[in-house]
Amino acid sequence: MSRRIRRMMDKDKMRVIGLMSGTSADGIDAALVEITGRRVRLLVFEVFPYPNALRRAILDLCRPESARLEDICHYNFVLGEVFADAVVRLCTGSGIGPGSIDLIGSHGQTIHHNPQGKRYARAVIRSTLQIGEPSVIAQRTGITTVADFRPGDMAVGGQGAPLVPYADYVLFSHSRRCRAVQNIGGIANVTFLPSGGKENDVIAFDTGPGNMIIDGMVRLFSRGKKHYDQNGVMSAQGTVDRKLLKEMLRHPFLRRRPPKSTGREEFGDEFVEHIYRLACKRSLAGVDVVATVTAFTAETVACAYRRFLPSQPDELILCGGGAHNKTLVEMLQSKLPEVKMLSSEDFGVSIDAKEAVSFAILAWATIKGKANNVPSATGAAGPVILGKIIPT
Amino acid sequence: MSRRIRRMMDKDKMRVIGLMSGTSADGIDAALVEITGRRVRLLVFEVFPYPNALRRAILDLCRPESARLEDICHYNFVLGEVFADAVVRLCTGSGIGPGSIDLIGSHGQTIHHNPQGKRYARAVIRSTLQIGEPSVIAQRTGITTVADFRPGDMAVGGQGAPLVPYADYVLFSHSRRCRAVQNIGGIANVTFLPSGGKENDVIAFDTGPGNMIIDGMVRLFSRGKKHYDQNGVMSAQGTVDRKLLKEMLRHPFLRRRPPKSTGREEFGDEFVEHIYRLACKRSLAGVDVVATVTAFTAETVACAYRRFLPSQPDELILCGGGAHNKTLVEMLQSKLPEVKMLSSEDFGVSIDAKEAVSFAILAWATIKGKANNVPSATGAAGPVILGKIIPT
Repeated sequence: MSRRIRRMMDKDKMRVIGLMSGTSADGIDAALVEITGRRVRLLVFEVFPYPNALRRAILDLCRPESARLEDICHYNFVLGEVFADAVVRLCTGSGIGPGSIDLIGSHGQTIHHNPQGKRYARAVIRSTLQIGEPSVIAQRTGITTVADFRPGDMAVGGQGAPLVPYADYVLFSHSRRCRAVQNIGGIANVTFLPSGGKENDVIAFDTGPGNMIIDGMVRLFSRGKKHYDQNGVMSAQGTVDRKLLKEMLRHPFLRRRPPKSTGREEFGDEFVEHIYRLACKRSLAGVDVVATVTAFTAETVACAYRRFLPSQPDELILCGGGAHNKTLVEMLQSKLPEVKMLSSEDFGVSIDAKEAVSFAILAWATIKGKANNVPSATGAAGPVILGKIIPT
Repeated sequence: MSRRIRRMMDKDKMRVIGLMSGTSADGIDAALVEITGRRVRLLVFEVFPYPNALRRAILDLCRPESARLEDICHYNFVLGEVFADAVVRLCTGSGIGPGSIDLIGSHGQTIHHNPQGKRYARAVIRSTLQIGEPSVIAQRTGITTVADFRPGDMAVGGQGAPLVPYADYVLFSHSRRCRAVQNIGGIANVTFLPSGGKENDVIAFDTGPGNMIIDGMVRLFSRGKKHYDQNGVMSAQGTVDRKLLKEMLRHPFLRRRPPKSTGREEFGDEFVEHIYRLACKRSLAGVDVVATVTAFTAETVACAYRRFLPSQPDELILCGGGAHNKTLVEMLQSKLPEVKMLSSEDFGVSIDAKEAVSFAILAWATIKGKANNVPSATGAAGPVILGKIIPT
């Protein structure tokens, strides 16, 4: 009943589950948090991998040439069931009754995203499509669900991304400390939180590649046997090649002014293979090349801070898979010697859980009637309450 | 802000706009109603036809062989803009400020509907897909919007249709009078409201063809010059052929027990051409055949009442395009002599506005936290609150 929604609006302590599935379509990240006032505490986190057949079906839906209408319709409801199942298993596995959960925030599975937009009549229409029917999640779990966060931002001219900076603000903003939240996934991005700043003082943009080039290089030099540089062990054995690093630092993305975002188009396979060929021509050793591209990622982050942030942060909070790469973290510290290096774990949110936690926070804000986009990051014309509420 | 939602929950008088676009994709029906307690008053109604190019694009989206992922994504947002525009024009045209509107209920444009469902793992997954991004409607108009009513019913095993019986219940149920709401669109369907009954006493099912066969026959006999029997003028000039009528009444759908629904598969072009050939073989005149198929529609309605309703209604409330067909209405009256014939117009809701009004009522119920599916009509396992709320 919507009496539940009313009760939540007044509730100071809420238990919220955040569900996230990224573009690689590996599976579902599910995080249960308790939000008290504005304090967020992670209670449980679990990853539920998709069955292989489902993953293949989803990847087919992401390609215009293989995506079929009836499959989009079907898998929207299938994924609703799979997301609901993740909620049930998270509760069962942790012994927490679903009846004690107030809310679910579900990002859904993106199958298309067009932030540049396409002409219709005299307007440019931006659009995005996430599937994983939230009505199914809500009915199957009996828990009020908020989903579909991106369309609201795009409706007011935003790119619908990034959405995590709002959660960074809630989790990490501080009245006297200036902080930067540095996420290192495939791509790396920063959320800058000036001390005592409000939502609209937040600055967020992509700093450049994260693990994308490191992973690509490890794969090439290990002939596909390794997929990433675990804990930074490979790069720790190598020496940075200054000449190659200098060549890489000429990439035009690094000089572009924020707000800016990047992806596989700029730092994907093509770029990785280009660097690989340069390295082979000079007969560089694999470990040296991996060390060099790791230094490149660290340098792009430090560079972006020097160029585009109004001040150096007092503290840098690392998250994303790259935070596990010790060499990368050490290189970053050496390039930003005055900045105190922390990780989201220091705030009780494990590195891997942070994105799922973010969607729990976004859903909480929607129910509380708080605008939860960051216009300076998305390019939206103004603040809006994102998401659709499915009452139960 | 969601303060608006909270205010609405407590509000006794609400102004709600209902938006509907049917499967023919002709355009948008927009109705503004005032709901006080449970009394509904229609203030304004207007039809906004789609531009031809948009209509063609939508029909392309409905066909698996021509529907493309990027177009589904794009036109979801385009239709959001077009629906929002209809709201703005409805307000401007009637001099009612959008600021005085509390809520929008939008059905959306169905591009796929699979109530039979398709297997996934060990389950049968029912699914449906309506487009017309409600986040765009809400942001563009500044009005809280409820949309996507069908998925919630399908999530609990329903067919996601019909949804209008709930609105019939709100509009027409009476403590001492037993009423049947008879809609005559392409297909005809009844909502039976026993006197003093509750939501779960409602019986609703398709009685059989509505105007579908009459329209088809008029088209064939006029060689495509006429598309329907305006006011029933043609059928009034003809004589019913008993033999042909008897042949038609052998259709197996008429004996099937409710809940049941039908469509073009059973009473579409193929059936019309079959009857046309029978009539030509016996050299029947066009007006006589049109009179006969009109009598057939009337008979299927009366037949369904005798066979499948627990009692004859005191009053029959007509709506849908067929209510304009005087011959059909007279035939129906002669077959149900004890039933008082009324139309939705007698209750202040014009025949053509009723479907759009229904989605205003469904949205109002969602905000009020009332379950608004009719499980006996949809086959759902139980009552649920349908729809997704987009706060502003």
